[in-house]
Amino acid sequence: MPDYIEDLEKWQSEFSHSYPVTVRFSETDAFGHLNNTVSFVYFEQGRINFFKDIGFGEEWFAKGGEGIPVTADLHCDYKRQVFFDENLEVHVKVAGIGNSSIDLHYLITNEAGKVCMTGRGRMVQVSRTSGKPLSWSKAALEKLEASQAIAG
Amino acid sequence: MPDYIEDLEKWQSEFSHSYPVTVRFSETDAFGHLNNTVSFVYFEQGRINFFKDIGFGEEWFAKGGEGIPVTADLHCDYKRQVFFDENLEVHVKVAGIGNSSIDLHYLITNEAGKVCMTGRGRMVQVSRTSGKPLSWSKAALEKLEASQAIAG
Amino acid sequence: MPDYIEDLEKWQSEFSHSYPVTVRFSETDAFGHLNNTVSFVYFEQGRINFFKDIGFGEEWFAKGGEGIPVTADLHCDYKRQVFFDENLEVHVKVAGIGNSSIDLHYLITNEAGKVCMTGRGRMVQVSRTSGKPLSWSKAALEKLEASQAIAG
Amino acid sequence: MPDYIEDLEKWQSEFSHSYPVTVRFSETDAFGHLNNTVSFVYFEQGRINFFKDIGFGEEWFAKGGEGIPVTADLHCDYKRQVFFDENLEVHVKVAGIGNSSIDLHYLITNEAGKVCMTGRGRMVQVSRTSGKPLSWSKAALEKLEASQAIAG
Repeated sequence: MPDYIEDLEKWQSEFSHSYPVTVRFSETDAFGHLNNTVSFVYFEQGRINFFKDIGFGEEWFAKGGEGIPVTADLHCDYKRQVFFDENLEVHVKVAGIGNSSIDLHYLITNEAGKVCMTGRGRMVQVSRTSGKPLSWSKAALEKLEASQAIAG
Repeated sequence: MPDYIEDLEKWQSEFSHSYPVTVRFSETDAFGHLNNTVSFVYFEQGRINFFKDIGFGEEWFAKGGEGIPVTADLHCDYKRQVFFDENLEVHVKVAGIGNSSIDLHYLITNEAGKVCMTGRGRMVQVSRTSGKPLSWSKAALEKLEASQAIAG
Repeated sequence: MPDYIEDLEKWQSEFSHSYPVTVRFSETDAFGHLNNTVSFVYFEQGRINFFKDIGFGEEWFAKGGEGIPVTADLHCDYKRQVFFDENLEVHVKVAGIGNSSIDLHYLITNEAGKVCMTGRGRMVQVSRTSGKPLSWSKAALEKLEASQAIAG
Repeated sequence: MPDYIEDLEKWQSEFSHSYPVTVRFSETDAFGHLNNTVSFVYFEQGRINFFKDIGFGEEWFAKGGEGIPVTADLHCDYKRQVFFDENLEVHVKVAGIGNSSIDLHYLITNEAGKVCMTGRGRMVQVSRTSGKPLSWSKAALEKLEASQAIAG
């Protein structure tokens, strides 16, 4: 078990947002399965959809927004092979909230609900002008915390 | 033979710029060979290196440059399968010069010198401010024509 | 107008299969729009979904199938820039049927129904064992022709 | 500092294999820099080149080889933004050897020698036939250990 998961069943139950993705043929490799680099593409897609869902789009992606999201680290554990044309779900949750950063957790499941990949990564809000970390506004904090309340 | 190649031998002899690329594992697919979408990645890489070689970097990629390159169309003919770890050469030449556009031709060969893909595509110089086609400057025209002279 | 489109309105009306795709952030590039190489990823995704829809999955993708699909050529015309998070539709149709090949046409539209890219490409059915072109079976021909009848 | 690096200077000095890669335009994103998912493509490319350099190609990539490499996990820490056309070096080393697995460490530096990304990941040798972990042969162990001796 990766060190960011204490109790797999509890950990899984805390995801309340998920996004479908179907494995493209161009995402497979000559071993016949999904290339390992693509899970990070799915994480990014899930993360951005999650931000939109919890109302983070305005701060980060609108022109003129002060803060921009920077990836500090990313991690993926590969549990089960995934093949062309499988219908997956990318689950995303906020696992921790810092002053100007968040720890996001990821779970990719297949149609049978089996765990294919788990992962995590820290995002930092950085000022577009100074390049320095930018503390969450009160409104942003409320949105992040609300996303956790729904899940719990 | 594609309609942009009249005489394959002559056509091949007119390339004087080429760039090496080795097939990555992540670029293969479950059929065991290079995925067909990747040849356009190689074309782009070759095209940009070609622009730098003939001195086009300043106009197009420097900040504040007036013109930006826009892809009008792209074409690829697949002649020979390519596999993981093959060492390829991406050849690029200017096949035609318009008022604000160029027709580029591409050739990808393997280590044995065999033709793997051929292709072509038109690039248009567009004004960053107006979004309209922007005629070549005299200096740019000279660079484009010089690249053809070297090849001939 | 590209030479594979005689009458744009008529050409557009002949598509009866389309598949949604949303532009991923990782598919944009530093010019701020969809990288030109990605339209071929969308074409492939549309093509494979189209094959499944018209019942071609069994012949080509099942283990032990005699024929495999080989891309002979691919072409894309770029008509309108596409940006992160746009919801596109990838339309696919059979535009011509050869002895062992088909000519597929592609159309990518945005949410407003505007044409973003058009394209075409020839696929050849090749024998897995001999590597030579393999004529369509009567059943396959009927499926290809049926897909055209629906569209017309 | 990530937990897999105790002393950065010592850690850096233990890499003896590195591979050049130049950032492609198609690998940038609309934030103007290298998309975060691409560092794993560079890790894979470095890893495979490393395996070839230390003589692992025969076991793993030859047809009929008994063992195949499976990625158990992957991690990347992003230290410095990377932009289009930068010339990077991907450094790879064996940081730990298990019964049927290895822990690989990665370092990506720019032309000035600055650290851009660090990372790690565990690979497991799995039997092609049983799908179970396959212990290293004595010859494989010797190659893995030799790669560490050179570095030290």
